[in-house]
Amino acid sequence: MAVKKLGAGVTRTDRTLMDGRTIRYYDTKGQVREAVDERPAEEQPLIGEMRLDPLNNEWVVIAAHRQGRIFLPPKELNPLAPSRPGFLTEIPESDYEVVVFDNRSPSLRPPESQFLAPENPDFSAPAIPAAGKCEVVCYTSDYDSSFKDLSHHQIRTVLEAWRDRTAELSTLPFIQHIAPFENRGEEVGVTLNHPHGQIYAYSYLPPKTARMLEVAQAHLKNTGRVLLDDIIAREISEGSRVIVKNQHWIAYVPYASRYPFEIHIAPLNGVADLVALNEEQCNSFAPIAKEVLQRLDGVFGVTMPYIASWHQAPVRTGREALRLHWQIQSIRRAPGKLKYLAGSESAFGAFMMDLKPEQSAQQLRDVSL
Amino acid sequence: MAVKKLGAGVTRTDRTLMDGRTIRYYDTKGQVREAVDERPAEEQPLIGEMRLDPLNNEWVVIAAHRQGRIFLPPKELNPLAPSRPGFLTEIPESDYEVVVFDNRSPSLRPPESQFLAPENPDFSAPAIPAAGKCEVVCYTSDYDSSFKDLSHHQIRTVLEAWRDRTAELSTLPFIQHIAPFENRGEEVGVTLNHPHGQIYAYSYLPPKTARMLEVAQAHLKNTGRVLLDDIIAREISEGSRVIVKNQHWIAYVPYASRYPFEIHIAPLNGVADLVALNEEQCNSFAPIAKEVLQRLDGVFGVTMPYIASWHQAPVRTGREALRLHWQIQSIRRAPGKLKYLAGSESAFGAFMMDLKPEQSAQQLRDVSL
Repeated sequence: MAVKKLGAGVTRTDRTLMDGRTIRYYDTKGQVREAVDERPAEEQPLIGEMRLDPLNNEWVVIAAHRQGRIFLPPKELNPLAPSRPGFLTEIPESDYEVVVFDNRSPSLRPPESQFLAPENPDFSAPAIPAAGKCEVVCYTSDYDSSFKDLSHHQIRTVLEAWRDRTAELSTLPFIQHIAPFENRGEEVGVTLNHPHGQIYAYSYLPPKTARMLEVAQAHLKNTGRVLLDDIIAREISEGSRVIVKNQHWIAYVPYASRYPFEIHIAPLNGVADLVALNEEQCNSFAPIAKEVLQRLDGVFGVTMPYIASWHQAPVRTGREALRLHWQIQSIRRAPGKLKYLAGSESAFGAFMMDLKPEQSAQQLRDVSL
Repeated sequence: MAVKKLGAGVTRTDRTLMDGRTIRYYDTKGQVREAVDERPAEEQPLIGEMRLDPLNNEWVVIAAHRQGRIFLPPKELNPLAPSRPGFLTEIPESDYEVVVFDNRSPSLRPPESQFLAPENPDFSAPAIPAAGKCEVVCYTSDYDSSFKDLSHHQIRTVLEAWRDRTAELSTLPFIQHIAPFENRGEEVGVTLNHPHGQIYAYSYLPPKTARMLEVAQAHLKNTGRVLLDDIIAREISEGSRVIVKNQHWIAYVPYASRYPFEIHIAPLNGVADLVALNEEQCNSFAPIAKEVLQRLDGVFGVTMPYIASWHQAPVRTGREALRLHWQIQSIRRAPGKLKYLAGSESAFGAFMMDLKPEQSAQQLRDVSL
């Protein structure tokens, strides 16, 4: 059983689950992780397929085995809890700090053989295996917690886990892009209420990443400057959309936000990905992350649904042009009302916002913590 | 009061509402439409603004006046009902067949002066007026109806209204793209349950249309063929995703659909837009449209939420490459379950489907009507 030493005093211990999947324990107290998964062995689902949507040359993943997956179980049947006598979960140990394990119903899986998605697919592209990797990140063993309730120490451990996963997944030859994200709240389709996020490692550039890359590369070519640097300079200079800033990070409502509450959080000195953050940047992330999420829940005094996603530079391209930022998007526009992506947004990609970004930034700043 | 004669024996009569907006009555029995809007005059909201999202060079519309709009009123307060003594609605007449009126809280409005959105905006693009036009299309005066419950005659009248609006909006110099669509069901954010759709006429190419145009133009250049012709040829040849076909139209689940139930309906002889449909194509649309929507509601025996959108060629470009089709997308994946656009879809544009398109086509074909 290999124990690996990471930053911030974090150790990682890997174990194998009953169906061959890996679980990684990220610990800060040198815990020994020897518990064996005692559930009966089962087969892993087959790999899905990716088909090219010929109307826009975008891959769509079809993973038909996922329909039957577990849906909003009650707390006592929570599969992300530590195991206890009589109730064996995805985590064999009886306690944990942070764990990352391979998703039991993954949309994307490592391919059987050498695999590379074609670079410029067109109408004639055949369906290919849905290569990639899907992992689950449990932020804490406490079901009733939430990312914003974690201590700075815990958030630092989660960050170290994200960084470790990004570093390791980047070495897999079939991976093009790594995306840690969190869906929070039943309003955005969460099927497990335990505080957790996911990591999708894609074997292709996701469409929105590909588009951001194209625009950032054009900006670099035209101006000699990195786009996110210019964006952050504008946010600092205009000031009206900044929520909070510390020595190494800034949180702002973007100039053209698409959701009633959308927040971007970025290091002031831009880096390509989570791995490239230095020690000081890592240590000053937790305070701003926690504050921003507390402010978000404070706006209406209710638990806000959100999607929080790390945008990194792709693994093998565009690392000179794209910069790390964390995007938090909430569809709640008022206590009893959600913003839906209806015809204009869903079918045409044209976003209509009811709330001025400056107004939403003001509401977030006005929350008393 | 001008009365205009359209196809299929439809006449159009225009009237002005209390705030200067236009309402158009589409009739088939030569009705005289003289009712005056007796509500107190009110100011129209100001035009919103469009800001360029610098991360992907896409316009985002900010129309902050829309937060207060009416939300799911009960049937007796339905603003899309005909007016009656003591209850004055958006439609001054005491009955109607089909009406199209300017939206009272539009995201997009005609600009004050000569206006053209910049063609290749970048980071330095200033905010501009949210130019365009938003209209509401009432399919019937019957609150308890639905598009699928309309008679063939009624659907033919709605089609004539869509065609007339497309033709007229195409003449406005600030309009680049015209998109009739319908949001159906509270699950997709409908705020009025009366059977109705909308028309958004954009002063810019919506991002998804721009992307489809780019891909279709590349296909035309590389192969000499129109992309949608090739797509329909493949659907006919493979057959497994075809739901129904008549002499002039085909309905199929697309090869790489993004939603549990997604249906595309297109004329077999492709045309650029609704205006270009010939008489026979117009007359054979209603039977296939009605059948497909009946099948959709039949799959689970429940009223399905959907977004139905007409994709047309843009007004001023790409008319050689893009072809008309009607896209119906439903997020219901099982009787009690919806598909949500969570992290992978919302933040990265990478769609994960739980259901094979062939399987969903089979379910739609298996419905007994």
